[in-house]
Amino acid sequence: MNILKIIEEYGFKSASNYYLRCKFILFNNYMKNIIEVLNWRYATKKFDAEKKISAKELGEILEVLRLSPSSYGLQPWKFIIVNNLDIREKIRIAAYGQSQITEASQIIVFTNKKNIDAQLVDDYMKFISKEKNVDINNLQGFKDMMNGIISSKTSEELKIWATYQLYLSAGNLLTSCAVMGIDSCPMEGFDKSKVDEILGLNELGLESKIIIALGYRSDEDKSAVSKKIRFPKEDVVLEIN
Amino acid sequence: MNILKIIEEYGFKSASNYYLRCKFILFNNYMKNIIEVLNWRYATKKFDAEKKISAKELGEILEVLRLSPSSYGLQPWKFIIVNNLDIREKIRIAAYGQSQITEASQIIVFTNKKNIDAQLVDDYMKFISKEKNVDINNLQGFKDMMNGIISSKTSEELKIWATYQLYLSAGNLLTSCAVMGIDSCPMEGFDKSKVDEILGLNELGLESKIIIALGYRSDEDKSAVSKKIRFPKEDVVLEIN
Repeated sequence: MNILKIIEEYGFKSASNYYLRCKFILFNNYMKNIIEVLNWRYATKKFDAEKKISAKELGEILEVLRLSPSSYGLQPWKFIIVNNLDIREKIRIAAYGQSQITEASQIIVFTNKKNIDAQLVDDYMKFISKEKNVDINNLQGFKDMMNGIISSKTSEELKIWATYQLYLSAGNLLTSCAVMGIDSCPMEGFDKSKVDEILGLNELGLESKIIIALGYRSDEDKSAVSKKIRFPKEDVVLEIN
Repeated sequence: MNILKIIEEYGFKSASNYYLRCKFILFNNYMKNIIEVLNWRYATKKFDAEKKISAKELGEILEVLRLSPSSYGLQPWKFIIVNNLDIREKIRIAAYGQSQITEASQIIVFTNKKNIDAQLVDDYMKFISKEKNVDINNLQGFKDMMNGIISSKTSEELKIWATYQLYLSAGNLLTSCAVMGIDSCPMEGFDKSKVDEILGLNELGLESKIIIALGYRSDEDKSAVSKKIRFPKEDVVLEIN
């Protein structure tokens, strides 16, 4: 429902004082329907290089990422915010020249921990024990189960599993940013080993997987007005009754 | 910011008529801060079996899924809504007895298309051509690029890539549901070949990967009050200046 229609429908125009107050609140806090939000979102190709994400917004974005769900809550990731423009220029070259890398307000490189192993599980259990103030011995069952899962998979399978979680966090970020009115462009097409090298990720035990550019769309971005291509419901949904 | 604080702050209590109107609008449409939303969300272990998702809400949930972003917009997926309780009971057994499968209002089985190939690209190009009303020959560059990507990967790599997209859509769904005030529980722990068999997915060229249970938390769910375990910001975020 359109914001102006709501204001009209509820007659706020007839009492200017309250109209203004409501207008203020509604414009700032009105919960746009999630469908409107997702229709508004698109993979932004051209960002307005002048419009920057505020420090407050960036703080919220990082908190959105921190709160992302993951399998067993393991959070096998690190999110790298690259502010340095020289480094972003190098990443842009490794991403086949995609201009979003340097024009967007922010870029976040989504990385996975390379070693998904017993040590990681051990550290995780210690952290849970501290956070929940429970004896670590009470977590033995959970720990054994996690170690069981980890030892049943190859290191390649574990990396893929960790990357599944990373994509889940990316889905969370894209939707959360859309709710916040922030534009985004997820990118998989870049030379990952090159980006790892530029950011020194090997030494940190990390591997880059996705880059998400964030900011505000340029008025000149033709993609913004291009029709969103989605298969019809009957092609992507099946109800079994 | 709390809804009651907003109402108080803006003095709506002093004009009951407008207060009621604003209260109605705000309670129904107030955009909760996304951080509040994500803190409210958790992997619901016990659903209230009596509280059902409405047909309108389910329609929105399916539209959220339909609008999910994917690499090149390829949408290599199908979302299976299982309403039949006998089938859900079978899936529950294949999911090692997890009660969410039968107690939640809805379950959605996230599946990938098994064949990510030139035929799929061809169908996609025809669809784009129709939707955008452009000559298919104008899409040749895009088509060649997609076929190039596909032929550069093994069928196993293509499946993993498709599953990455599926997890992205799952992240979108979890966050969107939280915004809608709907509880969710994502599940990876189930016998996938068994679920494929129960739902006849092989014949449909699909493979199950994730199940998400949706509904409303039970008052008795202890997980709801359990502290959310997330690493501190400094452990998951790195800023490069």
